[in-house]
Amino acid sequence: MKIPKAIQNLMEAFERLPGIGSKTAARLTFYLLHVPEDERQLFGQAVLGLGQGTEICERCFNIADPSTSSGRVGLCEICADKTRDQSVICVVEDPLDLMAFEKTGRYKGLYHVLHGAIAPLEHIGPENLKIEELMVRLRDPKIQEVVLATNPSLEGEATAMYIRQLIRKQLTASGKKIKITRIATGVPTGGDLEYADEVTLTKALEGRQEY
Amino acid sequence: MKIPKAIQNLMEAFERLPGIGSKTAARLTFYLLHVPEDERQLFGQAVLGLGQGTEICERCFNIADPSTSSGRVGLCEICADKTRDQSVICVVEDPLDLMAFEKTGRYKGLYHVLHGAIAPLEHIGPENLKIEELMVRLRDPKIQEVVLATNPSLEGEATAMYIRQLIRKQLTASGKKIKITRIATGVPTGGDLEYADEVTLTKALEGRQEY
Repeated sequence: MKIPKAIQNLMEAFERLPGIGSKTAARLTFYLLHVPEDERQLFGQAVLGLGQGTEICERCFNIADPSTSSGRVGLCEICADKTRDQSVICVVEDPLDLMAFEKTGRYKGLYHVLHGAIAPLEHIGPENLKIEELMVRLRDPKIQEVVLATNPSLEGEATAMYIRQLIRKQLTASGKKIKITRIATGVPTGGDLEYADEVTLTKALEGRQEY
Repeated sequence: MKIPKAIQNLMEAFERLPGIGSKTAARLTFYLLHVPEDERQLFGQAVLGLGQGTEICERCFNIADPSTSSGRVGLCEICADKTRDQSVICVVEDPLDLMAFEKTGRYKGLYHVLHGAIAPLEHIGPENLKIEELMVRLRDPKIQEVVLATNPSLEGEATAMYIRQLIRKQLTASGKKIKITRIATGVPTGGDLEYADEVTLTKALEGRQEY
């Protein structure tokens, strides 16, 4: 039996998404078949509107909303917010990481979104990330601290180390002083030591603080 | 930080899909942000085209392709195929089940898609399924066997039992004879007895055949 083209198209589109295999793609497609037409319209329009409905902040490369950024010339909400601490930059891999920090409500500084991490196996080098742009921002005399908040993964650690080296070189050349910090790694709150992996436990021990 | 409306719209649309939570919805949305515009167009158009690109077969309620069914007045490919065995009807819950049988290439009869199973907790009764329509089809003197291939779940078994009862009543009234069969339940090929649940093992024992 030949599957109708409309169904095949959508199944293939779903399958191209990360983490969605052919079974899930089929399940989602057939679910959408049973949904009212206006629900499908909403979904389809949301996909189509994604490109035009977003822009990249020209300073920190966070996602910005073009409809609300008028008058702020291409800046995201955070960069345009004068009340935020202009002396700290938190460097993250992608906008979702930035949002995770924003949800804590405890960080009041600025961000810099790299849009990835150095991953030689995937052919992602420093030149594919917004590292050059970070270096330019750090020339601003207002900047006093850079928090390296890339993921605690192999790629994230490598990226953090690479950036630290670059910053140090730039600071030596300019004679300027900027504090470079890295977010703490250790056992997550609510976790169970029994299930923590050895690397995490080792890092938690190494990072122990007076109590 | 406020998330751009375009991103929020798509995240909410993804979240309404079954089995997709807020984290996955965010991940998929941000993945699509990095994808070329024409890839997004393809996806969006596939969602929008789903409704118009499909129709329901008016005999067996399988999904049909309106673009290829011209001249076959609303029938799906299987119902329109004169070479298929017109004496057997395999009753399934939904089109995905039908496709699974078609993939085996071993079943040459017709189908009947119920579009669900009896599930009182979800307020799905026999009147919400295509059971009445199945009864009408069974009046055709050509039909000699009905294979009940609803899922081996609580709802599927209940539906199969309900339909069996209905058919028997109709046969008694008409004096006609139709063989009613149910697909075999047992341990799946390639499975490991060690991991099979008790109900499956019990059914596999009960359904043992001479060898």
